Amino acid sequence: MSNGNITPVKGEGRIVISVDAMGGDRGPAAVVAGLVQSAEKNPDIGFILHGDEAELRGLIGKRKVLADRCELRHAPRVVTMHDKPSQIMRHGEGTSMWSCIESVKKGEATVAVSCGNTGALMAVSMIRLRKLPGVNRPAIACLWPSRNPGGFNVMLDVGADIKADAGDFLQYATMGASYARNGLNLDRPRVGLLNVGTEDHKGSAELKLANDLIAAHAAAGGYEYVGFIEGGDIPGNRCDVIVTDGFTGNIALKTGEGTAKLISDFLREAFGANVLSKMAAVLALGSLKRLQKRIDPRRVNGGVFLGLNGTVVKSHGSADATGVSAAIKLAFQLAQSGFNDRLAARVASAGRAGQDAPRDDSAPSNSGNGIK
Amino acid sequence: MSNGNITPVKGEGRIVISVDAMGGDRGPAAVVAGLVQSAEKNPDIGFILHGDEAELRGLIGKRKVLADRCELRHAPRVVTMHDKPSQIMRHGEGTSMWSCIESVKKGEATVAVSCGNTGALMAVSMIRLRKLPGVNRPAIACLWPSRNPGGFNVMLDVGADIKADAGDFLQYATMGASYARNGLNLDRPRVGLLNVGTEDHKGSAELKLANDLIAAHAAAGGYEYVGFIEGGDIPGNRCDVIVTDGFTGNIALKTGEGTAKLISDFLREAFGANVLSKMAAVLALGSLKRLQKRIDPRRVNGGVFLGLNGTVVKSHGSADATGVSAAIKLAFQLAQSGFNDRLAARVASAGRAGQDAPRDDSAPSNSGNGIK
Repeated sequence: MSNGNITPVKGEGRIVISVDAMGGDRGPAAVVAGLVQSAEKNPDIGFILHGDEAELRGLIGKRKVLADRCELRHAPRVVTMHDKPSQIMRHGEGTSMWSCIESVKKGEATVAVSCGNTGALMAVSMIRLRKLPGVNRPAIACLWPSRNPGGFNVMLDVGADIKADAGDFLQYATMGASYARNGLNLDRPRVGLLNVGTEDHKGSAELKLANDLIAAHAAAGGYEYVGFIEGGDIPGNRCDVIVTDGFTGNIALKTGEGTAKLISDFLREAFGANVLSKMAAVLALGSLKRLQKRIDPRRVNGGVFLGLNGTVVKSHGSADATGVSAAIKLAFQLAQSGFNDRLAARVASAGRAGQDAPRDDSAPSNSGNGIK
Repeated sequence: MSNGNITPVKGEGRIVISVDAMGGDRGPAAVVAGLVQSAEKNPDIGFILHGDEAELRGLIGKRKVLADRCELRHAPRVVTMHDKPSQIMRHGEGTSMWSCIESVKKGEATVAVSCGNTGALMAVSMIRLRKLPGVNRPAIACLWPSRNPGGFNVMLDVGADIKADAGDFLQYATMGASYARNGLNLDRPRVGLLNVGTEDHKGSAELKLANDLIAAHAAAGGYEYVGFIEGGDIPGNRCDVIVTDGFTGNIALKTGEGTAKLISDFLREAFGANVLSKMAAVLALGSLKRLQKRIDPRRVNGGVFLGLNGTVVKSHGSADATGVSAAIKLAFQLAQSGFNDRLAARVASAGRAGQDAPRDDSAPSNSGNGIK
């Protein structure tokens, strides 16, 4: 369990990230290796690491770069991938995941990172951090390699909740745009609503209602609304933020990852096919490595929970050191930008706008209130 | 409009395909070029082509290979991509799409092929061909490049209807397995139900109910049920048939296509990056062409409408000659195998089994009734 009276290892201007060492498919060794990668690159980062103290002490003892920058919190229990969120919500105390979130709740760390069970992590985050005022359903947002100049789009929800109504879709638009402004440095992100076609008559009644709501709140939310988009637009450049429900988003995310993995395996086979293609692979090594980096899902590892009183980054369960380090980098960036306060202000502002009469779209957008 | 008393251009053992020449993004020239590709490869194929007679006569006149193998049916109107299905269903007579389906209804052709508006094509097919006895919601099935030995998986529904209940999911399992047996030559296809996780507690109440139903009917449907699968399994080898609703399936399909297109564009850029990589591209040309062929969406062009009294192949709206030819090849294969009669028999058999007590799974499956 977390021990409240230990001082966090905070150097001058250092940002502390709370990390769940357990619960990932590759165990605590992969997590610690990820911390090492991050610590080597970034002198301004510190960690509180949660899990089995004896095991973690053994892993950390060998790593000089973590000395004085990583504090341990013993947690005797581990949330497994098969635990039900509802059980963990009731009986999760004593797990490394619970302890990890607790550090953010207490203000000892700014952002939490875990590779564990997504449903359980969302349940613990909801019960300990609580929803932001005005948010009905928190969402998980992910980054997606795209044709846009910045190289990435934001998609949400990718799995916090399998349902969403029109009001939730509007909040996803507001929160996703806030994330794109702060995480991707876009002044006025373009938001699209995922559907089976771009014509207004396509999709469910709920989506048609959401289409109207999101359009009406574009000025208050500080985004441009491009209307319905299709699956092919997720990696495209028609918009920067893709809004969908957690069922569809989760399946789209995993379909995209699976397709990328299939093609990269086929590519490897193609280059091993004969002597000529092997020579070609050697010649093209530099270009192919850049390509691999561009589409490597580990580099965009880290779903962000939006809509809570605190930021939580969910890393892939199968993340290796590179994946964990990418999630920590994202956590650091969000902590540094004061993202959660900005998101809270934007949600509050959109909520107030929602109580007003429909706004005049010709009015200057994304200004006046000074919220990023 | 179709002229009933013209004898179809049927040679000895020739199979006639009804083709909608209009309504695709590239116009009738691309469709006719596709017919030429197919006719050159396959001496056993004949066509009835529907559209503007003057325009089509000009396009066909130049193509010797189509002489005596392609009959024209004048249709003065065209269904556009923006027409609403409900309007076409009521006022679609006189369109090339309507005329194309009519040829199958009259028995002049075995299978219909169209590049037009999917919703309108399904609406016209439903109203003219009618649903098979026992089918509630027809579905569109597509082929998906996969890690399985045959190279493809079947997924349905990819867009016939945005809703599906547990009974519909069961019918999709039965129809998809029948398609996999006849189209992919699999004796006992493995069926999976798409969800956000593989654990039994994941997903909506409807999906949990469908999970039980599909498992209980595995013997009658002649398939093996692998349970819930995730987006990453769509191109994988855990199952051969992916069952989902038309909203989710459509978005997964377009997300997969969009991801494949993104990577192939990145790959092209990578090989054009510098002199070394350009040399590499030349050396690897053969291997890369095989790879491109393996993942080229045009080669798997053709969604099949399942659950009607007649087979309809929906080609991609943007299909070029190669894409149209691939759709025609699929139509020919299905016509040749007598697929629709087999599917009808299987649906009827599953319907009867559904009225029985749950079957003993240890009994020999997919036998006894002689239905493929």
